[in-house]
Amino acid sequence: MAPRFTVSYYVRAADEAEARARALDIALEQTVEIPRDVVPKGYVEDEILGKLEQLERDPNGRPGYLAAISYSEDDVGGDFLQLLNIVFGNSSIKPGLKVEDIGLSPGILALCPGPRHGIAGLRQRAGIGAQPLLMSAIKPVGLSSSELARRAHDFALGGMHYVKDDHGLVDQRTSPFAERLAACVDAVGEANARSGGRASFVPNITAPAKDLFERAMMAEAAGAGAVMISPALAGYDVIHTLASDPDFTLPIVSHPAFSGANVVSPDTGFSHRCFYGALQRLMGADAAIYPNFGGRFGFTREECQSIAAACADDMGGLKAIVPAPGGGMNLGRVPEMREAYGNNVMYLIGGALLQDTDIVSASRRIVEAVAG
Amino acid sequence: MAPRFTVSYYVRAADEAEARARALDIALEQTVEIPRDVVPKGYVEDEILGKLEQLERDPNGRPGYLAAISYSEDDVGGDFLQLLNIVFGNSSIKPGLKVEDIGLSPGILALCPGPRHGIAGLRQRAGIGAQPLLMSAIKPVGLSSSELARRAHDFALGGMHYVKDDHGLVDQRTSPFAERLAACVDAVGEANARSGGRASFVPNITAPAKDLFERAMMAEAAGAGAVMISPALAGYDVIHTLASDPDFTLPIVSHPAFSGANVVSPDTGFSHRCFYGALQRLMGADAAIYPNFGGRFGFTREECQSIAAACADDMGGLKAIVPAPGGGMNLGRVPEMREAYGNNVMYLIGGALLQDTDIVSASRRIVEAVAG
Repeated sequence: MAPRFTVSYYVRAADEAEARARALDIALEQTVEIPRDVVPKGYVEDEILGKLEQLERDPNGRPGYLAAISYSEDDVGGDFLQLLNIVFGNSSIKPGLKVEDIGLSPGILALCPGPRHGIAGLRQRAGIGAQPLLMSAIKPVGLSSSELARRAHDFALGGMHYVKDDHGLVDQRTSPFAERLAACVDAVGEANARSGGRASFVPNITAPAKDLFERAMMAEAAGAGAVMISPALAGYDVIHTLASDPDFTLPIVSHPAFSGANVVSPDTGFSHRCFYGALQRLMGADAAIYPNFGGRFGFTREECQSIAAACADDMGGLKAIVPAPGGGMNLGRVPEMREAYGNNVMYLIGGALLQDTDIVSASRRIVEAVAG
Repeated sequence: MAPRFTVSYYVRAADEAEARARALDIALEQTVEIPRDVVPKGYVEDEILGKLEQLERDPNGRPGYLAAISYSEDDVGGDFLQLLNIVFGNSSIKPGLKVEDIGLSPGILALCPGPRHGIAGLRQRAGIGAQPLLMSAIKPVGLSSSELARRAHDFALGGMHYVKDDHGLVDQRTSPFAERLAACVDAVGEANARSGGRASFVPNITAPAKDLFERAMMAEAAGAGAVMISPALAGYDVIHTLASDPDFTLPIVSHPAFSGANVVSPDTGFSHRCFYGALQRLMGADAAIYPNFGGRFGFTREECQSIAAACADDMGGLKAIVPAPGGGMNLGRVPEMREAYGNNVMYLIGGALLQDTDIVSASRRIVEAVAG
């Protein structure tokens, strides 16, 4: 028997019998996808078919149950996309089901070596100790590369550790990728030379699917300090592939664009901690951006803290990564953020700093507030 | 001014003022992603910023409004992933918003040449006229390549036009991809030789991101008749890239695995017609698999018909594609299906045929019922 890994699902159901029937359906749907009465005896039934291991009333008081279903490593066939397909391929289309958690096994850990750098690597690159990391974004789309580079320079001079592209900056004619990359790496380097800091520029990597890896390599060759990728758009194996590519060494920041439907509904998709925490670590992201509570998105404080916890919890030896809450961060919220997240966090702050006419000073104030 | 394309959003809101505020937020969030008061004057404000073009109470009686927002082609920068990011990147994370429809423009049509074959090409390959197409799936995972190939043979001999891999078949040790591909192409070819039919084998293309295209090319070289890809897993540009790759000529079948959260919630994600119809055509899929009504998934008849309509509606000259409802199809449902879909459909029928001990006869009965 191959080792088995486990997925825990919230199953909306009126009673235990209904929950059990729905859970057994998941076990079929995610593996053999044929009626139960024609599942071949022997190996397919005994190993390949998902097994309902546990069923209990939802401990969080939702109207349903938690079902733990185990799957054979043989189901996965060494394919990361197939791992996600087993976790929630077709069942994602059934209402009233939510992936709560993923329990690993040796083969899954071998398939998912996880982040190369993690939070420790991001801090080391920034030259800081056990304090929060800070990241800003240059924007908006429509500015020239030199205007964007000036913003990158000022953020870096103000003490931001990472300065990233807005995730809408691609290869627009106002600021083509290669031109912006070179200009921003230079601008951040110049700021570092003036300040003695170690800020990194983080370009947004997006492209036709065949060119994506080449663009990531361009970023490394040009002197970027990390790259940002939106896995829900680019594909869930892209970060996974880059994180273990021997020819690529940069940290990877994951962006949540296009992924929202996976979490915002109370009983479809994934739990916040599983999608923005566990899955990102399995992929190999070093930092996971998600919307902060109290900002313009609807995540609660508890949901955000659950993500932060999942970035650091024991996960079979995978490195801890850094939760990067963004949206709605400003100077006034520092005490509240510190209380919610402690030190193991990367604050993503962009728009609020751009409202100041002096980006350098605005950045310095936030850096001091966060470090102080 | 660059031409503008339009996205129509359902916006949950108590009154028009709230709806307008939320719609203006979308226009900011999807483009400049900075506070309104710091949007640079001139080009950025006048062109790059989304524009609220129309706001009306939801005609379908939902508690909210429909907002039509236009975006400049300059926002997209010739990047298909960025098109999707503009349509619903960060706004996907806000509850109470749903993409209803996408209105194209010349530049978007240039970026999205659409399907190469469409429904007409799939029929031509199958050697049939204006009748429904039929597709079955070999499964389950865990069988050997020779056992799976025997099923492929029998489906083809029974008259199925396309015989596809189950979407959970990847490169498992029980049936490695290359071995299964060769065995199934041979088996379907042998069945064609016996029957005089023109069935095609359709392998499931999934792999580490760097190997995906190579595997699609392998499929073509080995004599597959089409390929199947799950864009919500593999990435939304993969089909887009393959559909216009001069070195690749096969039709592409899109599978909905992992995409469910995008549609099952009433007020997040996308409308059914937009996600499984319009988006698939923009990508360049020739057939779009989705869960049929009345089966084990929760789609309604109207939602399924809206998908079918979106596969054929006028869309700036893009070829019509074929809606491929699956799940729950059997002999008894043929009249109901015919009434719902007419002729422009591909029935995906798998599990029900496997319940018969004689796959060939079971397939023939369904082929006759559908053609009759």
